[in-house]
Amino acid sequence: MTRSRTAATFTPPVMAARRWLDGVTHPADRPLINVSQAAPVAAPPLALREAVACIMMQDTGAHLYGPVLGLPALRDEIAAQWSAAYGGQITADQVGITSGCNQAFAAAIAALCGEGDQVILPVPYYFNHRMWLDMAGVGTVPLVCGADMVPSAQDAAALITQRTRAIVLVSPNNPCGVEYPASTLRAFMDLARAHGIALIVDETYRDFDSRMQAPHDLFSDPAWDDTLIQLYSFSKAYRLTGHRIGAVLTNPARMAEIEKFLDTVAICPNQIGQRAALWGMQNLSDWLAGERAEILDRRAAIGDHFPALAAQGWSLLGVGAYFAYLEHPFAISSADLAQRLVAQAGILLLPGTMFMPKDMPAGDRQLRIAFANIDRAGISALFDRLAKVTV
Amino acid sequence: MTRSRTAATFTPPVMAARRWLDGVTHPADRPLINVSQAAPVAAPPLALREAVACIMMQDTGAHLYGPVLGLPALRDEIAAQWSAAYGGQITADQVGITSGCNQAFAAAIAALCGEGDQVILPVPYYFNHRMWLDMAGVGTVPLVCGADMVPSAQDAAALITQRTRAIVLVSPNNPCGVEYPASTLRAFMDLARAHGIALIVDETYRDFDSRMQAPHDLFSDPAWDDTLIQLYSFSKAYRLTGHRIGAVLTNPARMAEIEKFLDTVAICPNQIGQRAALWGMQNLSDWLAGERAEILDRRAAIGDHFPALAAQGWSLLGVGAYFAYLEHPFAISSADLAQRLVAQAGILLLPGTMFMPKDMPAGDRQLRIAFANIDRAGISALFDRLAKVTV
Repeated sequence: MTRSRTAATFTPPVMAARRWLDGVTHPADRPLINVSQAAPVAAPPLALREAVACIMMQDTGAHLYGPVLGLPALRDEIAAQWSAAYGGQITADQVGITSGCNQAFAAAIAALCGEGDQVILPVPYYFNHRMWLDMAGVGTVPLVCGADMVPSAQDAAALITQRTRAIVLVSPNNPCGVEYPASTLRAFMDLARAHGIALIVDETYRDFDSRMQAPHDLFSDPAWDDTLIQLYSFSKAYRLTGHRIGAVLTNPARMAEIEKFLDTVAICPNQIGQRAALWGMQNLSDWLAGERAEILDRRAAIGDHFPALAAQGWSLLGVGAYFAYLEHPFAISSADLAQRLVAQAGILLLPGTMFMPKDMPAGDRQLRIAFANIDRAGISALFDRLAKVTV
Repeated sequence: MTRSRTAATFTPPVMAARRWLDGVTHPADRPLINVSQAAPVAAPPLALREAVACIMMQDTGAHLYGPVLGLPALRDEIAAQWSAAYGGQITADQVGITSGCNQAFAAAIAALCGEGDQVILPVPYYFNHRMWLDMAGVGTVPLVCGADMVPSAQDAAALITQRTRAIVLVSPNNPCGVEYPASTLRAFMDLARAHGIALIVDETYRDFDSRMQAPHDLFSDPAWDDTLIQLYSFSKAYRLTGHRIGAVLTNPARMAEIEKFLDTVAICPNQIGQRAALWGMQNLSDWLAGERAEILDRRAAIGDHFPALAAQGWSLLGVGAYFAYLEHPFAISSADLAQRLVAQAGILLLPGTMFMPKDMPAGDRQLRIAFANIDRAGISALFDRLAKVTV
């Protein structure tokens, strides 16, 4: 008997970790610090909520089916803002709206791959990418990163086979936080193009990149869409996680394939969320700049506090956007350590083992901290607790 | 080179048909009658919009991630209302919320089937079901219906092989409108159980069933969830098409598999839509009864007007819920006729060819009318125009 699609993959890690909380009580003076998921914990700004509540009352279209590939006005807005931000020519027919960025990834893979094909994924990887590849019958080919947690195009070249359909990069990275250098992205683009495969770049965390200039020059290439597929999420920038809106940028022919998938799995992205995203893009650029500054300050707080942990043998493998990626000094697996931290330290975080295949031992020492949701005081408390951990 | 998942299927029919409108102008005194899609054209009731706008302002959770399987309160509400309506014992852990009913189908198939498996689908079928099976690498085994457009379990039995994982029924049916007798559903349940395969019953249109009693007794069987997977949509009942909320009912073990799929393709259903659906369930039962009465009156209007067409050689193969399914008397393919009707009669409808495999000639004579969106006057105009059609 064949294995079902879902039987080919694992239980979602965020939910598995949440079950570690079952039966554990946290003292009132030491509440749980949850750094397991990159998820805003506050509502979007009042002005956005007011605007969308108004739309809900007045705009009938906000309740009815819309185009499979999304609101034309939102596609236009992305095309215009991206063209300016990346210094390229991006048109609305190269932009599709999806029900979140996970769905954008799933749609892109469905348009590229069939049963038994392969996709190259740097490890540590974003586990939902791995889960979708498993369920799509696509082999994940792990690409080991360097000590700086940045993958190399040269290493990737050696992994390309007749079955390879794409290389996937996430920058700023989840789980490592690392901002890939523009030269790295360029080298991967050249490699992918030379082999006639796609380069998927997930830029969910682009709004929190610390660099002032564009993070890469890929869109400035007029032929970018023959190779590049960019993914984006509205979840983080405007605190719209619950609205499930993302985007995919690619060429119109591939978009027509993606449209088949989206029609069948979603019909259209929900209309309220699309209007919230559009309103955010058109009205919240100053607010978003403030959010970015706050996240960068939290990142700086990680740098301020880390030396105390370093003195105890911890390493900071990467930090940026929403994440810090650490190596612990203990002689136990990070999976065991992470579970133990719930009761011992009141911390919920994800172990490196969740971000790589089981046969890669590096994960045993690594931990991801999604620090964006806690402020400086929270980060200070988190590091105080980590410094006291004993095994 | 392997074919991608999306290359294994066809262009979404609703979109293909919409392109027939390109370049066609409709006289002011004969506006287009669009009966191509089962899609409400008015907003949900004011009270629902006000309630959800209020939630948007006050409930932070309405903007943030929620459980993969949906709002607990909505799962509870479905379990309670379904238990009462179907005369069975349905618990919240047997209910999952999805981003629309198409996604519920995709998730169920992912949990049941692997590459090369088979699913039995009565023809005419709902084309998005066929598209998802194509993309999932699952073979569609067509089950020809009887003259009453009802499939027979006995016929289905002959189609079951070692690779069969499920039989899919839609009742009230899309595209035929037919309400399957309770005995038919029971016979399919017994057949599926005897072979250890799943019976998927899509009840998207259940709220518009003309029968006063429960449409089947499957849920009254305490072991229903070993075989039955029921799908539902909130799109039609409360005019929430743009909110993308559906549901799947099955056993908890299968739900854990479905959860993997939903986590990866959606993370969670959007939160606003879930709250709108919950508010509707809790507050709009009287309003929904009125909607149902109106749809049943429109169905009666089809019966009133059809004799004029019957006199010209047309047949009414099925009518109910949102759809009428007709056989035309002309010596051309329904695909050609449907396209011709746009300019000649100002009617957009879908041909039977879109609801079955290319090699089934029956589709050449059949047409689907999604009549729910036009009132008695509109139905009268539609039939007047059809009566004047010449080829």
